[in-house]
Formats: sequence, structure tokens, C-alpha cells
Amino acid sequence: MPSPFSFRLNATDGAARCGEIATAHGAVRTPAFMPVGTQAAIKGVHHDDVRAAGADIVLANTYHLMLRPSAERVAVLGGLHAFMRWPLPILTDSGGYQVMSLASLCKVAEAGVIFRSHLDGATVELTPERAIEVQLLLGSDIAMQLDECVKLPADKADIERAMRLSLRWAERCKRAFEAAPADRALFGIVQGGDDPRLREASARGLIDLCFDGYAIGGLAVGETQDVMLKTVAETAPAMPAERPRYLMGVGTPADILKTIARGLDMFDCVLPTRNGRHGLAFTRFGPINIKNAQHADDPRPLDPESRCPATRDFSRAYLHHLFKAGEALGGTLLSIVNLFYYQDLMAGARAAIAKGCFADYAGQIEEQWQAKRDVTEQI
Amino acid sequence: MPSPFSFRLNATDGAARCGEIATAHGAVRTPAFMPVGTQAAIKGVHHDDVRAAGADIVLANTYHLMLRPSAERVAVLGGLHAFMRWPLPILTDSGGYQVMSLASLCKVAEAGVIFRSHLDGATVELTPERAIEVQLLLGSDIAMQLDECVKLPADKADIERAMRLSLRWAERCKRAFEAAPADRALFGIVQGGDDPRLREASARGLIDLCFDGYAIGGLAVGETQDVMLKTVAETAPAMPAERPRYLMGVGTPADILKTIARGLDMFDCVLPTRNGRHGLAFTRFGPINIKNAQHADDPRPLDPESRCPATRDFSRAYLHHLFKAGEALGGTLLSIVNLFYYQDLMAGARAAIAKGCFADYAGQIEEQWQAKRDVTEQI
Repeated sequence: MPSPFSFRLNATDGAARCGEIATAHGAVRTPAFMPVGTQAAIKGVHHDDVRAAGADIVLANTYHLMLRPSAERVAVLGGLHAFMRWPLPILTDSGGYQVMSLASLCKVAEAGVIFRSHLDGATVELTPERAIEVQLLLGSDIAMQLDECVKLPADKADIERAMRLSLRWAERCKRAFEAAPADRALFGIVQGGDDPRLREASARGLIDLCFDGYAIGGLAVGETQDVMLKTVAETAPAMPAERPRYLMGVGTPADILKTIARGLDMFDCVLPTRNGRHGLAFTRFGPINIKNAQHADDPRPLDPESRCPATRDFSRAYLHHLFKAGEALGGTLLSIVNLFYYQDLMAGARAAIAKGCFADYAGQIEEQWQAKRDVTEQI
Repeated sequence: MPSPFSFRLNATDGAARCGEIATAHGAVRTPAFMPVGTQAAIKGVHHDDVRAAGADIVLANTYHLMLRPSAERVAVLGGLHAFMRWPLPILTDSGGYQVMSLASLCKVAEAGVIFRSHLDGATVELTPERAIEVQLLLGSDIAMQLDECVKLPADKADIERAMRLSLRWAERCKRAFEAAPADRALFGIVQGGDDPRLREASARGLIDLCFDGYAIGGLAVGETQDVMLKTVAETAPAMPAERPRYLMGVGTPADILKTIARGLDMFDCVLPTRNGRHGLAFTRFGPINIKNAQHADDPRPLDPESRCPATRDFSRAYLHHLFKAGEALGGTLLSIVNLFYYQDLMAGARAAIAKGCFADYAGQIEEQWQAKRDVTEQI
């Protein structure tokens, strides 16, 4: 009998929290950063390196996997954990966000969303019930409700319409999820754009439905960092303290520190791997663009004190050379550098919250980034 | 004081030989396959995986490295071993072959070869003396003489002219190499196309100059496998038994087994990584094209009995998916699969030669490839 999904809050420090999510595939220490494995692979990085970096959980994208290789095929092959050989927890999104951003001819209606696949142009319908069915076939530990996400800035009327629709979809998802094994969790998604009252109404509606966790959706979609932080600060208090709070699609290391401080527990973002492939390394000294000419003769590693072999052992000159020479190994190594950086940032945050000194920790990290801005070039 | 370069023959089995090369960076068990790290990186594969596969030595390309990042820069950064963080032996080619195949406006003269860089169009001269200087700056354990390589089929007169020029260049390389540290080795290259008397004359000329090892160049350049094997069989006996014999640019697993049987000790080829990136896996059951549709639902690994994690642990369905989805991880995993396959093939060959049963070993391997040709699709 697998252990049921649960969340334990271990310590709080102001609004910041640290805790642990239990799943059938193991524990997730929070605050947690989830590397993104869009197509059942973290781009350019071997699973072993993702684990070595310290990730407790990865995210996979329902939209991509339902189209290729298809949820039914993954299910026959034993589910996503077996398919991609990731034995630890997996969260899947609902597919809604990417339907709306990637598919062509996307039509949102009460029943669900109809779109053309970006792969072969086939017409596909994604309803709340289908989004749950797909995620159950994939076998993720944490599934997300289908929601409609509106790009900011947007009219209040449009934001409210999408929020209300998302609430009705939340209820249908919740009902469809009743067939799920007991160890699977379903999260609701708070919508409402940058309007605090809509956010609160969304949160209340979701709480009435009683989800295993609550996410903030519809941010990191074009708004400024100020708007994002304000919305998170206003929304988090409306989310149950005894459930994990997940900020979808966020973000930079600075975004994550600032939203941990506002009470968020879970994060996902493609930045570590996307920036890595483009030659941008996140380091203690701030971001470093390894393609810049100044690194061509630099025998120093990115950070001699890192526990990450790629960060500690390879010279900046060699990493620079790999990018200049178009060797894919460069992107792989910098993706690993960044995955370690993000996980170490989270480990430091957890330790600081447990000791009650998170504000100091975040301040020191930001000071280090700032201090080095004068001596080494940045993004 | 680093140990000097040496070669010890441990056993022979017919013409096949097994032995050990000692270098300042460690031992090379022969027969040895050298993965190709053209630009100081084995394409798409982390150094740790190359070592885990069992490679004792890698090859790096002088032509590419002299143009970018430049031999002088690598030297300042501590030499190639430090630069690429490969602590084991490294062999560098002379650059000649790639000048003649990759550069534009290449002009061969007595003094050397003048060409335009494929990177920026700059005019560069590569003389025998410069080829040695560059390789000493790179710091490889085994350097190669500059030679002229003629594509087959070719006129006998042209083959002979290039062979004589290569001999004169061999002498100049040998003289230039007198400045090298005592632990570095220089190999001569037997030329002469598909003409046994020219090959023999070339070998005799080189032996008079007394090299640390001898290579067969000018093969795997367009001739049939029959011509290649015949030339190797005719040339090997003219090469000193007490020195390593290196067959440049060869080849497929079958080529390698057949030329080990003809007395060759060292091999290099881009096939394991190039084929891996293109979805072709070398396995016990012969080559497998993982992109073929039949693998989409196949839960079996490429070979459950392999010691290679990528070969043993990932399903064919997952590897197929990675290629279909354009995930670079697919090419990386299949490159690792192939590097392990080649190294295991060599380890098996060494063990079989030591036991005096190499012909049986080669026969069994080829039988396995053949047996499976009926039940699984091939290249």
C-alpha cells in the first residue's frame, strides 16, 4: 500500500515556510524547485545529473506528451516514471497553458478547449475530464486542474470570465479525479490576473472544492516583477497554510527568493536548462555569459567552491571554447551548472527558514550577486 | 620523472596481438579503440561517460584545435589534458588529413600545405615542423607526422608522389620532434594507397627513421572493404612487431575485428558518436535504427545484459521517443551506448587474444550480428 499524499509544515520564518510533501515516489522537500522535463526529458541533461543536482521532483508537460508519444502509449509502457526512468515524484501540468500558447486555432468553450496539434495539425479536444484522464494515464504524483490562463495585461472582464471558467473546470476536474488511486494528488489553480479580489474569490472557490494543494497560475505571463510579487503577496494569504502552494512557471533565482519570502513552496521554470543551452550560467557571483570573449583565456572554474563538478572542475576557457565551437557538451554542462545552482539555492533557503534567518540568507545571496557585478560581466 | 613511452606485447594469436602502451598519462591496453574528440570534446558525451565506457585514450584533431582555440592558447591553459580535463592518454593527428578534406584552397608543396581556414578564411601554413610544434603545444602523449593522404582510387603516380613527399615530411617531423620531452611519442604514417610495393617502400623508409609507433594512413578514404583489408594484410607484416600499429580512421565493428586479425593494435573512428546522434545503436544483435516505428511500443532495453546503463536501463520505446521528439538526450544516450559497445568489443578481443581464441571470438560476434538480422531491422 503506497503512502498517501500529505504535506507537513516543518517551520515558518515570517511568511516563508519549509516542509515536506510525501508521495508514493518519495519525499519533496519544500521550498522545492522542479526542473522541467517537457517531453519526458530534461533538455540535454541526463537523469542522473538531475538527481545528483538534488531535485526531488520534476515536471512533465501533459500537452506535449498527450500528442507524442500519447498518454495511452506511456500508460502501456508502465507510466511516466517507468517510461523516463525517473523514480522520484513527478508533477504534470494540465496541458491547458501550452494548448493556449503553442497550439494553432485554439478555441476555448465551456466544455473545454479545441485546438490543432502543432505536430500534425490534427484537431484535439482537451476537456477537464480528458486532462485528468491523461494525467492519470501518465501516472504523475501530482496532477493539475485544467484552467484558462490569460496573458497580462488584460481587461478585468476577460480575467474574471477566465477565472470563473477555471473554477467550473476545477469542479469537473475534482469529480473526474475521484477515480484516481489514493496516493495521487490534484492541485487547484488560483486565477484572477493582477486583481486581488478576483484572486481571493478564485482561492475561496477552490478551497470549497478541497484540493491537495493550490497553485498560483496566470503569472510569469508578461507582467512586471512588481506586479507578480504584489499579486503573490496578496494571493498567498488566501491559500490554505496546511497545503503546498505552487507558483507556476517562476522563475529567476531572485523571483524565487522573493516569492519564498511571500509564502510559496513550489516552483518550476525552464530557465536553468534554457539559459544553460544559451551559454548563461547562474553562479554565486550572479549570472555569467560564458560566450563573452573575456572568458577565452580564463583558467578559473565558474566557482571553485561549488559541489557541482561542472561548475568546479571545468575552466571558463574550456566552457567558452565549447560554445564557440558549437559543441553540445557546452550546453549540457551549463544546464547542469544551473540545475545545481537552483537546487543549492533551495537547500540554502530550506536551511535558513528552519533556522529562522531566511531574510538574512536572501539578503546575502543578493549581495553576492551584486558585489560581483563590478568585476565580472553579466547577462 | 614521468615514465617513458613504451609498448609491451603480451600475447599473439595468429597475426592478432594484445599488449600495453605505457605513457606518462597511463596505460593503453591494445587492441585499443580511441573515441574521437575533434574539438577537445567527444561530441555530445560527458568525459565521465567516455571513461566509464572503458576508453584508455582519446584522439583530438590538430587541425580544429590549431584554428580554435589555437594551440598557443591551449598551452597557456596547461595543455590539452588540463584544458579538456581528460587525465588519460591523448593522441593527436597531424592536421594534414583534415586540412586536405575540410579547408578550402588547399595547396600542397614541398615545404608543407597552405590552406584557408574553414572558420574565417585566414591563410594558414602547416609545415611538418609546425605540425610538430602544434602537437607539442597541445601536449598530446602520441603525436603523428604530417603526411599527404590521397583519396582512392587514384593514379599510381600520384599515390607514389604523395608517399615520397610523406616520407620526406616524416624525416622533418622526426627532426623537429627531437625537442620533445622524453615521455612523448611520435608515430610515422605508412602511405602508398592500394599498392603493396609502395606500402612496403613507405614502411621501410619510416623504419629507417625509427618511430615510436607506425600507422597505416590513406585508408577508409573511399575504397571498398576488400581493398582496405587486402592493403592492411599486405602492409602489417612490413611494420615492426615491437611497435604499436595504428589503423587511422577505421572503422565499423566488423572492420576492426578483421584488422585486429591482421595484426593492428589501435583504431579511431567517429562512427560511435556520429551514428549515435543519428539514431543508430551498435548492439550485440547488430546495428539497430531506433527511429524505426517498430520501436515505439517496445519496452525492452537495447540489451538487458549490457554493463552500459543506457543500453540496459532505458526502453527502446523511450529512446525512440527522444529521437522523434528531437530531444538531444537521445543522441547522447545512443552515443554512450555505442562507446560502451566499441570498448566492450575491444575488451573481448584482448581477452580472446590472450586466451588464443580470437578467431572464435570474432566468429561468434559476427554470428550474433547475423542471427538477429532476421528478427530485428538493421541499418
